Amino acid sequence: MDYKIGVISGDGIGPEIVKEAKKILDKTGEVYGHTFSYDEILMGGVSIDATGVPLTDGAIAQAKAANAVLMGSIGGNTTTSPWYQLPPELRPEAGLLKLRKSLNLFANLRPAYLYEELKEACPLREDIIGEGFDMMIMRELTGGLYFGKRVTEERDGVMTAEDTLTYNEHEIRRIAKRGFDIAMKRRKKVTSVDKANVLDSSRLWRKIVEEVAKEYPEVALEHMLVDNCAMQLVKDPRQFDVILTENMFGDILSDEASMVTGSIGMLSSASLNDTKFGLYEPSGGSAPDIAGKGIANPIATILSAAMLLRYSLDLDKEADAVEHAVKQVLKEGYRTIDIMPQEEEKKSSVTQVGTAEMGDLIAERI
Amino acid sequence: MDYKIGVISGDGIGPEIVKEAKKILDKTGEVYGHTFSYDEILMGGVSIDATGVPLTDGAIAQAKAANAVLMGSIGGNTTTSPWYQLPPELRPEAGLLKLRKSLNLFANLRPAYLYEELKEACPLREDIIGEGFDMMIMRELTGGLYFGKRVTEERDGVMTAEDTLTYNEHEIRRIAKRGFDIAMKRRKKVTSVDKANVLDSSRLWRKIVEEVAKEYPEVALEHMLVDNCAMQLVKDPRQFDVILTENMFGDILSDEASMVTGSIGMLSSASLNDTKFGLYEPSGGSAPDIAGKGIANPIATILSAAMLLRYSLDLDKEADAVEHAVKQVLKEGYRTIDIMPQEEEKKSSVTQVGTAEMGDLIAERI
Ligand SMILES: CC(C)[C@H](C(=O)O)[C@@H](O)C(=O)O
Ligand SMILES: CC(C)[C@H](C(=O)O)[C@@H](O)C(=O)O
Repeated sequence: MDYKIGVISGDGIGPEIVKEAKKILDKTGEVYGHTFSYDEILMGGVSIDATGVPLTDGAIAQAKAANAVLMGSIGGNTTTSPWYQLPPELRPEAGLLKLRKSLNLFANLRPAYLYEELKEACPLREDIIGEGFDMMIMRELTGGLYFGKRVTEERDGVMTAEDTLTYNEHEIRRIAKRGFDIAMKRRKKVTSVDKANVLDSSRLWRKIVEEVAKEYPEVALEHMLVDNCAMQLVKDPRQFDVILTENMFGDILSDEASMVTGSIGMLSSASLNDTKFGLYEPSGGSAPDIAGKGIANPIATILSAAMLLRYSLDLDKEADAVEHAVKQVLKEGYRTIDIMPQEEEKKSSVTQVGTAEMGDLIAERI
Repeated sequence: MDYKIGVISGDGIGPEIVKEAKKILDKTGEVYGHTFSYDEILMGGVSIDATGVPLTDGAIAQAKAANAVLMGSIGGNTTTSPWYQLPPELRPEAGLLKLRKSLNLFANLRPAYLYEELKEACPLREDIIGEGFDMMIMRELTGGLYFGKRVTEERDGVMTAEDTLTYNEHEIRRIAKRGFDIAMKRRKKVTSVDKANVLDSSRLWRKIVEEVAKEYPEVALEHMLVDNCAMQLVKDPRQFDVILTENMFGDILSDEASMVTGSIGMLSSASLNDTKFGLYEPSGGSAPDIAGKGIANPIATILSAAMLLRYSLDLDKEADAVEHAVKQVLKEGYRTIDIMPQEEEKKSSVTQVGTAEMGDLIAERI
């Protein structure tokens, strides 16, 4: 088959890591008899530089016309880059938010798990790591505070800024269903995170999640307050299977969870809508400080491409092959600099490689 | 001198731990020639049971009449306790929020540091702990999402819930000043945490913090996005001195930070207004599961009493004495169950004690 992949290389290390992911897709196509054609879509800083805005209507149309979109990363250093002198709605991140909304990408899946081979990179004590952990964060991505009404204005002569956090039952129900669906394919546990002791939106969240839970009698549901969840992720990450939560809590907790694994350069994410379409991107940022040096870790992007194969194109066998090749390369001891062991003695047992070399090694093993 | 201390014993382990803190205050009074008279104030579940509401106007008046308030903890198990069948504004937590607002307690100070003696309880890897860490979280406590307008209603037949996040320049300025003031007495670094790439309230926050920073040329200011901060607390907590942030981010990050120290049973907090008055409470919760068993750790509450001596009563010498006595008892190897070492071999080098015994041991050393 021929698949049309929208590609958002973006800013910072984006272009380098996306290049390797395309290399992997091409190799997978060769082996399994598919062709991938790529349509480069401008978003973020590169789009600002070229068009004056972080996302044009043409770019949205390109994304809609693709089977799926693979993204690197967008944005720059928020204190030094001139993009951040622009009004908020013209900055790089505004492009990403607009794309999520335009394509209705309400379900953000962020796996956070410990790689056996990278155990030593985990910031937690060994007895807490235990046999390792494996969670899926299901973050609502098109509602809540990030998409609410905002205003900055003088009120009685005092400068005042306001953001609004709104959720309706439909928005909560559809993401909750996704959370329970995923849990059914995993260890059948959902931890729904809210701040129901304070917020109205959280109380509605909890009510609807409980309604949805009734349709999944096999899944164990627990509720957890967001402040407690921030603690539990550090204290005992093994307790979690699926974490289901609203947009902002998900933003904070998913980043915390990926850091807790110690494998942030390895973690992919998918943003899905009601169709097969999805946007796939690594969990890490654009890392402008190391851009262009050829040292960025392409694995998270490569694994995002694997998620793309699995969720948007239904190519499970191909996705398995990519994931297996990544594991293989790690087992053989290849590491980019971010996942090198810290202790001197351990360094000699592994081989440090750059971005392109890592891509080649993985491609060879497919 | 004679000092009038309002006491909110509250729910769960509250009464047990407050009792030990009073024991310590009394002993301090004996040694240094002060008397403390206590006025018990009903708040939370006990107040609901006695009066039908979580905080009466009379209780607020009692608090206002005191030099300072010492609190245990309020609330119960949110799934099993009948308090959580009540409408939101009648639940235990609503009492605490109302008290904060009525007394204008806008500045919440939460120290998070690693106790040398409890290093092994820290969930982080030893090389990350290094020489240990010591942060102060300055959380805005009377604004933002927790005090905004809320509504749950049908909109076009769809149940919808909305919370509002509002900050004005005055609210931001006064908490920022507190943050910089504290930094001047510490390592002169402020990390202001926001989500300025998305929220209007965060952009105003950042702007006002920068204005305030100009009055403190000796203090180094950095801005950090909240999702990144949630990662950095796990990756490298040593980088932080003062974390300055709004109400909800502070709620989440301060809990994460205290868990990162591994010493949550040891961490105190102070909620202050524009006067010398303050409300002092342990960082941990009401722990209903262990209430009444005599095993709760009273140290966080005892250290909250030390903060009360220092900040509200200007009794620095006395506060030092309490803190010193706590260190001494830990050095001598006394531990409540929550801070017992996990490994068998290490258990024999310490002595496990209960709540009251821990209070006695500390009192004896003042
Ligand atoms: C860039 C930013 C708007 C975005 C978000 O907060 O949603 C990012 O942090 C993420 O998590 O994908
Ligand atoms: C009880 C609750 C309302 C409170 C809060 O979130 O402010 C608590 O979590 C805290 O941090 O003091």
